Amino acid sequence: MRNNETILLGHGSGGRLTHDLIRDLFVKYFKNEILQTQGDSAILNFSNDKLAFTTDSFVVDPIFFPGGNIGNLAIAGTVNDLAVSGAEPKYLSAGFILEEGLSFEYLEKIVKTMAEEADKAGVQIVTGDTKVVERGKCDKIFINTSGIGTLFPNTEGIVMGDHIQIGDKIIINGYIGDHGMAVMSARNNLKINSNIISDCACLNKLIEKALQFGHDVKFMRDATRGGLGTVLAELCEHKSFGINLLEENIPVRENVRGMCELLGFDPLYVANEGKVVMVVAKAYADKILSSLRQHPLGKDASIIGEIVEQHPGRTWLLTSIGGKRIVDMPAGEQLPRIC
Amino acid sequence: MRNNETILLGHGSGGRLTHDLIRDLFVKYFKNEILQTQGDSAILNFSNDKLAFTTDSFVVDPIFFPGGNIGNLAIAGTVNDLAVSGAEPKYLSAGFILEEGLSFEYLEKIVKTMAEEADKAGVQIVTGDTKVVERGKCDKIFINTSGIGTLFPNTEGIVMGDHIQIGDKIIINGYIGDHGMAVMSARNNLKINSNIISDCACLNKLIEKALQFGHDVKFMRDATRGGLGTVLAELCEHKSFGINLLEENIPVRENVRGMCELLGFDPLYVANEGKVVMVVAKAYADKILSSLRQHPLGKDASIIGEIVEQHPGRTWLLTSIGGKRIVDMPAGEQLPRIC
Repeated sequence: MRNNETILLGHGSGGRLTHDLIRDLFVKYFKNEILQTQGDSAILNFSNDKLAFTTDSFVVDPIFFPGGNIGNLAIAGTVNDLAVSGAEPKYLSAGFILEEGLSFEYLEKIVKTMAEEADKAGVQIVTGDTKVVERGKCDKIFINTSGIGTLFPNTEGIVMGDHIQIGDKIIINGYIGDHGMAVMSARNNLKINSNIISDCACLNKLIEKALQFGHDVKFMRDATRGGLGTVLAELCEHKSFGINLLEENIPVRENVRGMCELLGFDPLYVANEGKVVMVVAKAYADKILSSLRQHPLGKDASIIGEIVEQHPGRTWLLTSIGGKRIVDMPAGEQLPRIC
Repeated sequence: MRNNETILLGHGSGGRLTHDLIRDLFVKYFKNEILQTQGDSAILNFSNDKLAFTTDSFVVDPIFFPGGNIGNLAIAGTVNDLAVSGAEPKYLSAGFILEEGLSFEYLEKIVKTMAEEADKAGVQIVTGDTKVVERGKCDKIFINTSGIGTLFPNTEGIVMGDHIQIGDKIIINGYIGDHGMAVMSARNNLKINSNIISDCACLNKLIEKALQFGHDVKFMRDATRGGLGTVLAELCEHKSFGINLLEENIPVRENVRGMCELLGFDPLYVANEGKVVMVVAKAYADKILSSLRQHPLGKDASIIGEIVEQHPGRTWLLTSIGGKRIVDMPAGEQLPRIC
């Protein structure tokens, strides 16, 4: 951090710079055991209740994009962070930072979308806050949602992947890269008509299906900023296992692949807002896959790789033509303000 | 709301416009019983635990001011929202929105202050999020803190003031207006050397002293945005009681009064960040006052008014020269971005 004197866009990428900022600044000063786990949610023990607690701020640009807006994104993002921690999402807060001059019409549309998305996910927005800053001091609207969920039984260790073993399978619930490319295509300076629609969705009902398999689901994370590649690179970093990823099994839509090629992006690192990566016991992988495929948000689920003994700490992408390359955390920022 | 087509600074004032925005938009769409109570925290019932949950975004300008910075403000604001709801603050989240180009030196100073303030209050920051937006798309740094606390016994009804009775006394723990005027004096365009220091502080330990009196503390709220006047106007609105406020008993420092006169502000509506307004049973008012005065943050506590039968729904300020005026919620915004 000493080499950089100021905050760069890359510090918000979810990749290496974000990772280092969290370790060298936030974890250093706020130090406590709960924060150090660095899961998608903090796990809190009360007298009789085990709860998950998470927070996320949303600064997506533009605020409306194909498949959603900053409102349903803010609900889905936090619901999913709770769900992948093995919790049933229950209560959300909503903190708005509004730019003076924002139209009520936009704000009402966003709030309505939030209400609908919360309804679908079965969560309640129970507390909120509104701040307004002068014109030019924020970009239309930023939303923070924090959330509380009650942990399902048999989910201990899922946040950290404590029970991962060699041979475990890696599952994703569908096509990657849709959200990132949908937002990109909606940006004013890019006049691309791609027909790509964001995958933004609350995954808690889908995830509940997998959690019926109890301890055989060993790890889950939603592949948002930084994409699938970052989730896996982070998962095996400093671990005694490696990951082999089978390129041909990773679902990527043709139009997403095309737009990525055009713009020089790698779909592996493009943000999703409705994709969960799971590590599951080998013996139950097919059963969990079938179960996921019965849900609309899991119908394109696929087993995309496995936990291996070789190359510990590293994720390898095995390409369809027999090559291999290392999947590392991206150093900088390829797509700012995607969520 | 139909008459205004866009968001105004006043919608963030904590006064009438904020109030209407919450009612006509957020409560309308997010409708649920918990949100409708509109307390400083939502009260959540889990299987065996009663928790308070709250959120606040901080956009103060400038980010450093006499007596603190946006970091301790963000901790104190949320700790106090939990404490005035009758809860012991336990866990906080921290969501950062950073402007590209923010210096690490500033960020580290802010994070360090947050850690120190959290320590003092006995709370842990257990989860977080960092977003970075392009230069010019936010103002240096915005921080959201959400918080969870465990409710103390005998605090039911305190959020809404359900048990308030005619004759109850109103207490404030010290001087009003310090925070607002300290922030104002730090603004670049005002070269005022006022020696005013923000009262920004975590009040949870002070409030615990009062809560030993159980049901005799009937209502608490921290007088932040909108100040003491707004808290009281809001408290008695649509109620069957009124409030008489004794001007001469309200502690205002000479330099704060002077600066308010100079700038045309009313100290009653100026933000505080370390002041709690309490409604307490008449019979215990003196005992509670003495107890508060034993704590450094309560040494200037004062009984400033009472709940009356006359003028229901209205707060009257009885001036030292025998006059009276109605204390209403401010319509617009007198001090934007004070917290």
